[in-house]
Amino acid sequence: MAGPIEFYFDFSSPYGYLAAHRIEAVGAESGREVLWRPILLGAVFKATGQSPLVSQPLRGPYHLHDLQRTARRQKLRFQLPADFPMATIAAARAFYWVEQRSPAEAKRLAVALFDAVFAQGINISATDSVVAIAQAAGFDSDDLRAGIAAAEIKARLKAETDQAIERGIFGSPFFIVDGEAFWGNDRIPDLRDWLASGGW
Amino acid sequence: MAGPIEFYFDFSSPYGYLAAHRIEAVGAESGREVLWRPILLGAVFKATGQSPLVSQPLRGPYHLHDLQRTARRQKLRFQLPADFPMATIAAARAFYWVEQRSPAEAKRLAVALFDAVFAQGINISATDSVVAIAQAAGFDSDDLRAGIAAAEIKARLKAETDQAIERGIFGSPFFIVDGEAFWGNDRIPDLRDWLASGGW
Repeated sequence: MAGPIEFYFDFSSPYGYLAAHRIEAVGAESGREVLWRPILLGAVFKATGQSPLVSQPLRGPYHLHDLQRTARRQKLRFQLPADFPMATIAAARAFYWVEQRSPAEAKRLAVALFDAVFAQGINISATDSVVAIAQAAGFDSDDLRAGIAAAEIKARLKAETDQAIERGIFGSPFFIVDGEAFWGNDRIPDLRDWLASGGW
Repeated sequence: MAGPIEFYFDFSSPYGYLAAHRIEAVGAESGREVLWRPILLGAVFKATGQSPLVSQPLRGPYHLHDLQRTARRQKLRFQLPADFPMATIAAARAFYWVEQRSPAEAKRLAVALFDAVFAQGINISATDSVVAIAQAAGFDSDDLRAGIAAAEIKARLKAETDQAIERGIFGSPFFIVDGEAFWGNDRIPDLRDWLASGGW
């Protein structure tokens, strides 16, 4: 099997939500596994001096409108939560805990968390919120709570975020395949074309 | 005829250069006139607190690589000029001077200026450079020099830039059609799809 598509995102990234609903289809059609890699974008923004898109003058209103129309195009519900951006450390740790045993289950949890935030407007910053959403999706709440608090999981998330910065990742969603980087939900068509054509 | 596609750009915008070579085809296939509107992005960045992409940590290297691969895909030469970003006030004024008499000729001049910058790496910040490039493309140098210095042309460029900021434009290239905004060369496929499908 050819190398994977690495899919970096933050759970508070609205374009990450849109991408999470599209990227597995690209992996399937190109015969590539997709490795989901939640990171903490706050640490990345510290390194780049950027701020969340929707909080920027002029850019914010454009992107909010663009998110709404793009969600309609992808036939997804979308709302920007009242509490935005929000802390996603518990969500990301929950992901890596589940991923140790099953990457597929971790993806299912990730979609449930993304949908809670951007389809339902739920604040997932608290561990209790993450656990409640996971439980509704069939995950064991005690197990998940232990995982979120586990030292090796905390270290894993920190290592993934540090490595993302080292690799030049500066936003979400961000894809790397065969060493080639694509930034943004709007670049998924380019990523598909790159894989189908063998690159430009 | 349906309403126009307004194409805002700055002559020092590398993605603007790539877009300038694609947007007329979109206008032709959708039956829309394309109105080219050079502006001064420096004034826009003051309003948004942004800086040129390629000068930002992490984002800069990504975008330089992306420009090179996208130019290959569009079968265009590309280089980032040694002097970048550069002042484009003379180029934009020259455009509006020519446009008063012929929008088509102004587009031809715009492409010649963009190609000088991003295919050949020429610095067009000086009026002499703009006039030399225009002359090589068949424009009257004395006439153009007078136009660049004309008070009404200076006022026109200022008014276009002010209006662009008022309309929420924050980057280059930026397209507006039927009140719908699309930012970036990479959104031209979305713009095409929007026009072909009647919107999402």
